[in-house]
Amino acid sequence: MPQDQLPSTNPIALRYGTDMPQPALWNATLATLLSHRSVRAYTDQPVSPDAIAALVAAAQSASTSSNLQMWSVVAVQDPARRARLAELVGGQRHVAAAPLFLVWLADLSRNARIGERAGAPLEALPYAECFVLGIVDAALAAQNAAVAAESLGLGVVYIGGIRNRPAEVAAELGLPPQVMAVFGLCVGHPDPAVATDVKPRLPAAAVLHHERYDATGDAAAVAAYDARLEAFQRGQGMAPVGWARSVLSRLKGPGSLSGRDRLREVLAGLGFPLR
Amino acid sequence: MPQDQLPSTNPIALRYGTDMPQPALWNATLATLLSHRSVRAYTDQPVSPDAIAALVAAAQSASTSSNLQMWSVVAVQDPARRARLAELVGGQRHVAAAPLFLVWLADLSRNARIGERAGAPLEALPYAECFVLGIVDAALAAQNAAVAAESLGLGVVYIGGIRNRPAEVAAELGLPPQVMAVFGLCVGHPDPAVATDVKPRLPAAAVLHHERYDATGDAAAVAAYDARLEAFQRGQGMAPVGWARSVLSRLKGPGSLSGRDRLREVLAGLGFPLR
Repeated sequence: MPQDQLPSTNPIALRYGTDMPQPALWNATLATLLSHRSVRAYTDQPVSPDAIAALVAAAQSASTSSNLQMWSVVAVQDPARRARLAELVGGQRHVAAAPLFLVWLADLSRNARIGERAGAPLEALPYAECFVLGIVDAALAAQNAAVAAESLGLGVVYIGGIRNRPAEVAAELGLPPQVMAVFGLCVGHPDPAVATDVKPRLPAAAVLHHERYDATGDAAAVAAYDARLEAFQRGQGMAPVGWARSVLSRLKGPGSLSGRDRLREVLAGLGFPLR
Repeated sequence: MPQDQLPSTNPIALRYGTDMPQPALWNATLATLLSHRSVRAYTDQPVSPDAIAALVAAAQSASTSSNLQMWSVVAVQDPARRARLAELVGGQRHVAAAPLFLVWLADLSRNARIGERAGAPLEALPYAECFVLGIVDAALAAQNAAVAAESLGLGVVYIGGIRNRPAEVAAELGLPPQVMAVFGLCVGHPDPAVATDVKPRLPAAAVLHHERYDATGDAAAVAAYDARLEAFQRGQGMAPVGWARSVLSRLKGPGSLSGRDRLREVLAGLGFPLR
């Protein structure tokens, strides 16, 4: 079926609930975007150099603040290094299993080197603004690469656990100062034997505000989503935890951050004083 | 021409230089991604509610760390508010001219309200990690929306200037504590009378590292890009500043950050102590 024709399963219903109508607008790109699901099981087939080139070209085509291009990416394919990184991110086996693990970097060092070569140190770099800028640049680039990968039939999953132990990750990847691993992205050909599903999200009204922020309907929207996510989890044979309970458990306190409560001090050691 | 056929103008050459071969892999989604260009002039045609719904569905289909969904977006269409925001971002006329201005928010408050309703304050939220998480969530969502918009023939441009005066922006949009405007996105139908161009980027080898970070070829890659960007700027009738000089000027010191050198202290006031 051509991707610019609506699929028989309503893609909006998968994301928002079965009472939703089919989307009014549709094309092949929307089909790629709307059908995203996290893939954690892959075949042995490597990701081809042509596919890697396509992902990087897509990433570099994303917007970047003032064209500063404050990001880089490390493509990890060596199985031993993937295994070590799988441990550093909290024992996530799919990092070792994915043929390609992309580590996305907020990279202020390339710009810093321009200053060094010119004998003009860039004194704006230590400010929190440049940290934000590098993270945003890395995220926009990575998301374009993720979409490109999915358009090519590859499966991906983001790995925030790369921030669990940033100093060890920096050592493993040989990162210079003023470079931070923001997240990882596993990439591989999805194992057809392992089912994946589109994950339901909050009602659109909960995230979309008109003119000014409005939390009036927030409690009701979260309650509705909670019930829908519980039903989805039951259908998957998972514990029906819903959303609110998992939010409470994940954000309970510094101890629930898997070591990332130390991010601020680790960042200072990596060359991000966040002035 | 169907988008899954290669265009007559080599899209890789536009991004990386005329000596590059055509891409080895191609489809309609890659065509959308690779042909991105910033659009700052629009027709009077509004962005339809169906298009806004498609952008938000695409945004919500992006990955979000641990499904925490720590982002929101404010859709600004009121001309008076767009005009005020255009001033707050440093007098960028296209913010007032775009029929739709989306302000993307790192939103920790929705999760915080779950904690409040449960009588269980979420003590992880004040940590730098959750600030990073909100920014990444907002950026992944926004980039999906930007790609969706371009797939529908709309033009977009990101507005980092929304961080110039974060407290005033928060007041204008009625943002509660623990919510920060990360960037804006102008959206509209491109004015066909105003030409736009694909912006050249650094050689792929400058941002893509294999196994470990390697800055060996960095100076040569930047020099090559500098020359290519100068040629591009000459072709556009712009001053041939190149890249290195603009990096030096943009990041010279706190004074070159358009007020964003105060971001750290302003964030503390907005409920982001960055512990």
